[in-house]
Amino acid sequence: MSEDNGERTAAPRFSGIKTFMGLPHSTQLEGIDFAVIGIPLDAATNFRTGARFGPEAIRSMSATVQPFSIEQDVDVFDVLRGVDYGDLPVVPGYVTESYAEIEAGLTPVIEAGCLPVILGGDHSITLPALRTVVGRYGPLALVHFDAHTDTKHDHFGQAYGHGTPFRRAAEEGLVVTDASIQVGIRGTRRVSDDIASSEALGYAVITSDEARALGPQSLGDRIRDRVGNHLAFLTYDIDVIDPAYAPGTGSPVVAGLTSTEALSQIRALSGVEFIGFDIVEVLPAYDHAGITALLAASLALEMLALVAIHRSPASP
Amino acid sequence: MSEDNGERTAAPRFSGIKTFMGLPHSTQLEGIDFAVIGIPLDAATNFRTGARFGPEAIRSMSATVQPFSIEQDVDVFDVLRGVDYGDLPVVPGYVTESYAEIEAGLTPVIEAGCLPVILGGDHSITLPALRTVVGRYGPLALVHFDAHTDTKHDHFGQAYGHGTPFRRAAEEGLVVTDASIQVGIRGTRRVSDDIASSEALGYAVITSDEARALGPQSLGDRIRDRVGNHLAFLTYDIDVIDPAYAPGTGSPVVAGLTSTEALSQIRALSGVEFIGFDIVEVLPAYDHAGITALLAASLALEMLALVAIHRSPASP
Amino acid sequence: MSEDNGERTAAPRFSGIKTFMGLPHSTQLEGIDFAVIGIPLDAATNFRTGARFGPEAIRSMSATVQPFSIEQDVDVFDVLRGVDYGDLPVVPGYVTESYAEIEAGLTPVIEAGCLPVILGGDHSITLPALRTVVGRYGPLALVHFDAHTDTKHDHFGQAYGHGTPFRRAAEEGLVVTDASIQVGIRGTRRVSDDIASSEALGYAVITSDEARALGPQSLGDRIRDRVGNHLAFLTYDIDVIDPAYAPGTGSPVVAGLTSTEALSQIRALSGVEFIGFDIVEVLPAYDHAGITALLAASLALEMLALVAIHRSPASP
Amino acid sequence: MSEDNGERTAAPRFSGIKTFMGLPHSTQLEGIDFAVIGIPLDAATNFRTGARFGPEAIRSMSATVQPFSIEQDVDVFDVLRGVDYGDLPVVPGYVTESYAEIEAGLTPVIEAGCLPVILGGDHSITLPALRTVVGRYGPLALVHFDAHTDTKHDHFGQAYGHGTPFRRAAEEGLVVTDASIQVGIRGTRRVSDDIASSEALGYAVITSDEARALGPQSLGDRIRDRVGNHLAFLTYDIDVIDPAYAPGTGSPVVAGLTSTEALSQIRALSGVEFIGFDIVEVLPAYDHAGITALLAASLALEMLALVAIHRSPASP
Amino acid sequence: MSEDNGERTAAPRFSGIKTFMGLPHSTQLEGIDFAVIGIPLDAATNFRTGARFGPEAIRSMSATVQPFSIEQDVDVFDVLRGVDYGDLPVVPGYVTESYAEIEAGLTPVIEAGCLPVILGGDHSITLPALRTVVGRYGPLALVHFDAHTDTKHDHFGQAYGHGTPFRRAAEEGLVVTDASIQVGIRGTRRVSDDIASSEALGYAVITSDEARALGPQSLGDRIRDRVGNHLAFLTYDIDVIDPAYAPGTGSPVVAGLTSTEALSQIRALSGVEFIGFDIVEVLPAYDHAGITALLAASLALEMLALVAIHRSPASP
Amino acid sequence: MSEDNGERTAAPRFSGIKTFMGLPHSTQLEGIDFAVIGIPLDAATNFRTGARFGPEAIRSMSATVQPFSIEQDVDVFDVLRGVDYGDLPVVPGYVTESYAEIEAGLTPVIEAGCLPVILGGDHSITLPALRTVVGRYGPLALVHFDAHTDTKHDHFGQAYGHGTPFRRAAEEGLVVTDASIQVGIRGTRRVSDDIASSEALGYAVITSDEARALGPQSLGDRIRDRVGNHLAFLTYDIDVIDPAYAPGTGSPVVAGLTSTEALSQIRALSGVEFIGFDIVEVLPAYDHAGITALLAASLALEMLALVAIHRSPASP
Repeated sequence: MSEDNGERTAAPRFSGIKTFMGLPHSTQLEGIDFAVIGIPLDAATNFRTGARFGPEAIRSMSATVQPFSIEQDVDVFDVLRGVDYGDLPVVPGYVTESYAEIEAGLTPVIEAGCLPVILGGDHSITLPALRTVVGRYGPLALVHFDAHTDTKHDHFGQAYGHGTPFRRAAEEGLVVTDASIQVGIRGTRRVSDDIASSEALGYAVITSDEARALGPQSLGDRIRDRVGNHLAFLTYDIDVIDPAYAPGTGSPVVAGLTSTEALSQIRALSGVEFIGFDIVEVLPAYDHAGITALLAASLALEMLALVAIHRSPASP
Repeated sequence: MSEDNGERTAAPRFSGIKTFMGLPHSTQLEGIDFAVIGIPLDAATNFRTGARFGPEAIRSMSATVQPFSIEQDVDVFDVLRGVDYGDLPVVPGYVTESYAEIEAGLTPVIEAGCLPVILGGDHSITLPALRTVVGRYGPLALVHFDAHTDTKHDHFGQAYGHGTPFRRAAEEGLVVTDASIQVGIRGTRRVSDDIASSEALGYAVITSDEARALGPQSLGDRIRDRVGNHLAFLTYDIDVIDPAYAPGTGSPVVAGLTSTEALSQIRALSGVEFIGFDIVEVLPAYDHAGITALLAASLALEMLALVAIHRSPASP
Repeated sequence: MSEDNGERTAAPRFSGIKTFMGLPHSTQLEGIDFAVIGIPLDAATNFRTGARFGPEAIRSMSATVQPFSIEQDVDVFDVLRGVDYGDLPVVPGYVTESYAEIEAGLTPVIEAGCLPVILGGDHSITLPALRTVVGRYGPLALVHFDAHTDTKHDHFGQAYGHGTPFRRAAEEGLVVTDASIQVGIRGTRRVSDDIASSEALGYAVITSDEARALGPQSLGDRIRDRVGNHLAFLTYDIDVIDPAYAPGTGSPVVAGLTSTEALSQIRALSGVEFIGFDIVEVLPAYDHAGITALLAASLALEMLALVAIHRSPASP
Repeated sequence: MSEDNGERTAAPRFSGIKTFMGLPHSTQLEGIDFAVIGIPLDAATNFRTGARFGPEAIRSMSATVQPFSIEQDVDVFDVLRGVDYGDLPVVPGYVTESYAEIEAGLTPVIEAGCLPVILGGDHSITLPALRTVVGRYGPLALVHFDAHTDTKHDHFGQAYGHGTPFRRAAEEGLVVTDASIQVGIRGTRRVSDDIASSEALGYAVITSDEARALGPQSLGDRIRDRVGNHLAFLTYDIDVIDPAYAPGTGSPVVAGLTSTEALSQIRALSGVEFIGFDIVEVLPAYDHAGITALLAASLALEMLALVAIHRSPASP
Repeated sequence: MSEDNGERTAAPRFSGIKTFMGLPHSTQLEGIDFAVIGIPLDAATNFRTGARFGPEAIRSMSATVQPFSIEQDVDVFDVLRGVDYGDLPVVPGYVTESYAEIEAGLTPVIEAGCLPVILGGDHSITLPALRTVVGRYGPLALVHFDAHTDTKHDHFGQAYGHGTPFRRAAEEGLVVTDASIQVGIRGTRRVSDDIASSEALGYAVITSDEARALGPQSLGDRIRDRVGNHLAFLTYDIDVIDPAYAPGTGSPVVAGLTSTEALSQIRALSGVEFIGFDIVEVLPAYDHAGITALLAASLALEMLALVAIHRSPASP
Repeated sequence: MSEDNGERTAAPRFSGIKTFMGLPHSTQLEGIDFAVIGIPLDAATNFRTGARFGPEAIRSMSATVQPFSIEQDVDVFDVLRGVDYGDLPVVPGYVTESYAEIEAGLTPVIEAGCLPVILGGDHSITLPALRTVVGRYGPLALVHFDAHTDTKHDHFGQAYGHGTPFRRAAEEGLVVTDASIQVGIRGTRRVSDDIASSEALGYAVITSDEARALGPQSLGDRIRDRVGNHLAFLTYDIDVIDPAYAPGTGSPVVAGLTSTEALSQIRALSGVEFIGFDIVEVLPAYDHAGITALLAASLALEMLALVAIHRSPASP
């Protein structure tokens, strides 16, 4: 993007209105490759709440993230044109009503052929996001990083909560479960058949210990094999990462990924054709020094770098 | 309760399972005068959320609150017998479903003739609480401390939110609005007729500046006059207090009450016959050093002291 | 602005890109009455630093501030049209170079006849702001709220620092010192003639104790008398307020104003013709629960309400 | 425990009186396998203090820990019946007097044949705990995870402090030192013979670097070999873990275990016959987002899972 | 101290080794008027603990306090020569052993005729301090600011704790109780005769409400009358101040003094002949932005200013 | 240093005036091997600022660091005699003027042949430090740990900032770039040639991933090979470490070193002849529980241990 690193930038990165990585705030999508979209719904959570401030915090810390990734050796903004689309409206405390808003709000982005990079919000937002994306692309392979399978049967007697989206998604036919995979599952459960119950829906499950033992490259191979030629949606619950690295989340589970492991795993997914991303469950009120939000923003950039490499003219 | 202050207590107040002021945790209400009850619903909030942890935090800090009030010169536990009833079940992210749970959960307490001291939760919980209390006692005078009137017409198109309970309560005939009063209203609004709209429902409104100018005694007189002979319910939104004293709340508004003003106002309400209390909108994630929770616990003790004086044999 | 308070708003105030009070982010000033402008310079500070994040934090908390002020009974956005102009570029660690940027950046706003509402940054930014404003309007009366006189002779041997702007301003002829006044001075000093030295420049000085003893109305009278018919600039160092209410600042001094006193004093300034405002020394890294930033945003709205009343058709 | 994971739970885990993992609070031990017991003594500490709030914090965060361990594949509550016994009384600032209280308080638990899971408190509490346990079972093998050997000769001239318990325990004949082992020792010392001095008492010492190099399985083998057929007590100082994962502790030492390493090491101890556990030195005032307390609660569950496997009918 | 406020200071106040207000760290007392001394004992506390870090935090924030007091119009360092004596040794967790250390450590300071300014530590340190001071000057009038009377009969069965020093002091004949006064008492108690019990020892008690009603000047008169011609010791528990202003303390009580009230009360004590001061119960782990420590440092300077005025040649 | 670890120390490590590891505060350098020196300049930073409080925080946490390193098996204070030299004066907000102060202040230390252990401050301080050191020793090999190369062409149009020191150092001939090495580089950049641009100056660059893949020993070999027989200066930007371990820094980058990796790498540098160290970019306002400052203090001790081993009589 420039000949050397000596150019004068107009203003330090701590200044200015905070959009994601300083992208223009716009809802005009013509010629736009990706749109960063906040969905600040946090109603349907089992423990801590407050992910409604996730998009603001991620935008704030994204000021320190730049478009060129040293590790992936690509400049995202050289290849892809993006906007910060702002946030979709939600109805605090009303999950199903919010779902309608989210689907309505997301539709023009998907219809424009724009890749959505969604910033949650709690994990219940992924269901309406999938509905909208699938409305255009058909059933998808789900690549799901999380400490939890989120395939509970219900949410305190209701269908929709942040612990149920991937049972509902399977039931609604939104995901091709036998091309889908859940990575990072770990910890303790109220019931012993949590993983079996998810596998019964068709999902492959890789625990946190298994993912660590595989290493990023073998994990990437496993995921690529699983996804095959399906279009894929990557949903990323920040609680897959250890609370030392991501304290600002709602359902923290110890013994998670390190940030190095997390980023390496994302970088190892080249070749999968992603048509959307989300990063959910960032709770700024429990974060410190913005490290969780910074990690979320960095993950988003590395996800976009995957797409940039995929779409780059130089890409094989 | 004892001849001198030298008695050995079994254990320091930092130790033990945390119930409100160390009261027994019990749902047996025979012979019980008051029950402290948590209602950890925080779904329907406009800005910050997290009052679901309010009851836990208030219980924790109540360890430093004792039954004898120097300023009211009464030992609450000498006069009243209480329990910590625990929390009522709620459905996170489902307001109306939670209302049904709250009403079902609260009914046995009210039917037992027990005075409820409710720890929120956001202010949307006061509506089902009033429904339950009114089911036994009939329409009540409402004494309402708050920075906001909470008489909005709707909550993002829905009937129930933490900004609408007192319009709904008026519409449902739960409160005798012309015996009811809202104290501490202040700050900025989206619309100019916020106070007028509340007055149109029949509520008297006293702004924060007016309350301060009156002083606690005159304010107490004003409230007593307004309530008259009606049974009264006191609903207390901690945001009536200045953020310096109560930072842990969801919709902070500057230039609120000091803690001295707040406690003095409560103490000046002797003579009003309260049949229930709530304290809402304590958000521990935004508190520091527990000062908001401590203030909430202290307010609860002073509210109970009002009742203790009222019911004391020595009372005129 | 609307018939009742029941209208559906598009989105909750926690959502969306954060501009000041949701104003449009624009540098187009035609027909615009006021522009909110961040100047994130914090180089020249004696103790804590970090006011570069002040504008972001004030914008964030301004989401809870609305255009209608209950206490001033005016809807600012009904009378005045405003934008969030964004931040001016600065050179971190280079005060004089930043001054050049600030003057260049502020000039188009002042030339457009737009009233600037400047969000600091440390207090050293007021000097270039005054230079620019005076370039159009001529020497001004300064209304200065602060714990410190900021009239030191030098900043560790340099001319420009956050302790020297009002000596420089006097020397440069930017302020009519005998129409100017410093309010809220208090605490301890290295030297005994700090106040005398400021008075020797022509400033009137009212200590914090004196301001409190006067009360807001008499203080307002005193300031109005002092300013007379001069155009005035209001510069507000948040450290005039007590650290309990404004912990997020760089040079905290105990025994300052309460938020109620601070807002009342601003509201008592009606009649003074202000042509610009700044609020400086908000350091988010030392704030908690955003209470300092919220207070700064609330002060800005009340300052704008003064202008709205002044310019309102209904104004006498 | 249930056929599927769709059952309706009565209330979300953020609600209710906080006992360890929601266990009944009871001092009736008939038919009870384990009792969780707080010992909030923190008097005798060399640097930071405040572990008196450790039990409360661990109980609070244990709300997110469930009985089924994915990694150990056992449901603790299916095999073991437990209670939260509450806290033992202590005398703040009086170590020896507190020891008497602790021994008196713990005796009925041990006499009932109940396995104690002790939540500290600082590490000085392990001495009276060992005295009580040994009173019934005779000298024990000690499995000790810690950054420090805690075998100092004295505590500022006194016998008992949080740096001396395991010298005293050896001297009192409470532990079979040549069946005992200290794991995780690291960092800097005032004297060069710290480890040698511990080894001279008979303890085996494995440094943090050695433990990491061994890996969990070989470390488990080493410990099993060392313990042999002795009954064992596991004492766990949370400062064995790195401050990034466990900031809330009193004597933090860098370069400690990760949470993954820590949990894996515990899981590798199957086969050792533990008759008691403690987890000490959790200081909530220095924690953030409860991550240290969550880790302590998770460690306790994994320790109990070891026992559950050991006592399970299916166990070989 | 200097002709104008433009002199170049060698270094900004954030730099350098932190002694109280930059005083030289020395134990040479010849020609020294006052010595600032830390006593970091915090063993014997009923609720929160951690005042061992009080001296460090007060020294750190004292960097922003200067020797000239605007409100008292005196430059303390022009009149008095002081040192930072460092901290006295204590034995964590051993109250009586620490008392011996404190008395031994304080004796040379008192014998040198040096006025001690003691930084606690919890309030249990005042007893050995009084013993030492009384050893030279004989029984003293005590001027005691606190939310609590600290005249409990015992500390969990022991004689010495932070709730008992002023019963012990009376019993040991260290204070002339009928020349002594306790100011700021308020809140709730386990027993109803707490104040009566203190009065029975001879102390006068002024509650927080009474002190506020009197105002600083009348309170000063009352204290001067009470003390008469006795030499006096001022002991200041920071919890006399409201938690909004002083969150960093161990036993916070709502509805306390504001910082303005607190400083005004100190300034109103001119004429009393103080021969020592202490400020206790500052707990940095519960403070934020150092505001409690700053207030403690500011109070110390104002106490010294009282002495400076008293000893100033210009003093009548 | 002592026969056993039972000796009574005079005072607990939480007490006393805080110098680095309790070293005497002195500017007398005769017979002194190393001097710890704070340089609290933080003006020229691109994102967060506040490293001016780095030296105070590192000194505070160094109270828990002791002279004997278990891992390096050496007692630093047995071999080396050190002082805490205090802080050098700086001019906040004036980089070049501060450089003059730093060079003047550092010269007597270097001239005395004393090894400087410099505590920053931001990374811009390394340039004047190098100038001073090179003034005595001639051009040096630079061993540079950092997430960033800090070889930008300019700092917002100025020559000196915290992103430019190692371009300036190369241009000024201060470093032998082909004997110098940068370790830990990672993350995202505004431009794609950041590493190439540094290599073009002659520096070797090892990314964070490469360093981790090499392991400490091979990395140490690589560095030793690179440095050869040159005298070396080690400059350590704490942001080379992951934000989970070092949140208190100004430009955090995810996926950095763990504390174990960081310390192991330092320990693997034995044999290199270092004549100076700095540790920069510790920002206490963003730290929690002091973990970043503790890590910085621990790194300093391990650096000194390298020198102690090198200079020890027993060294080969």
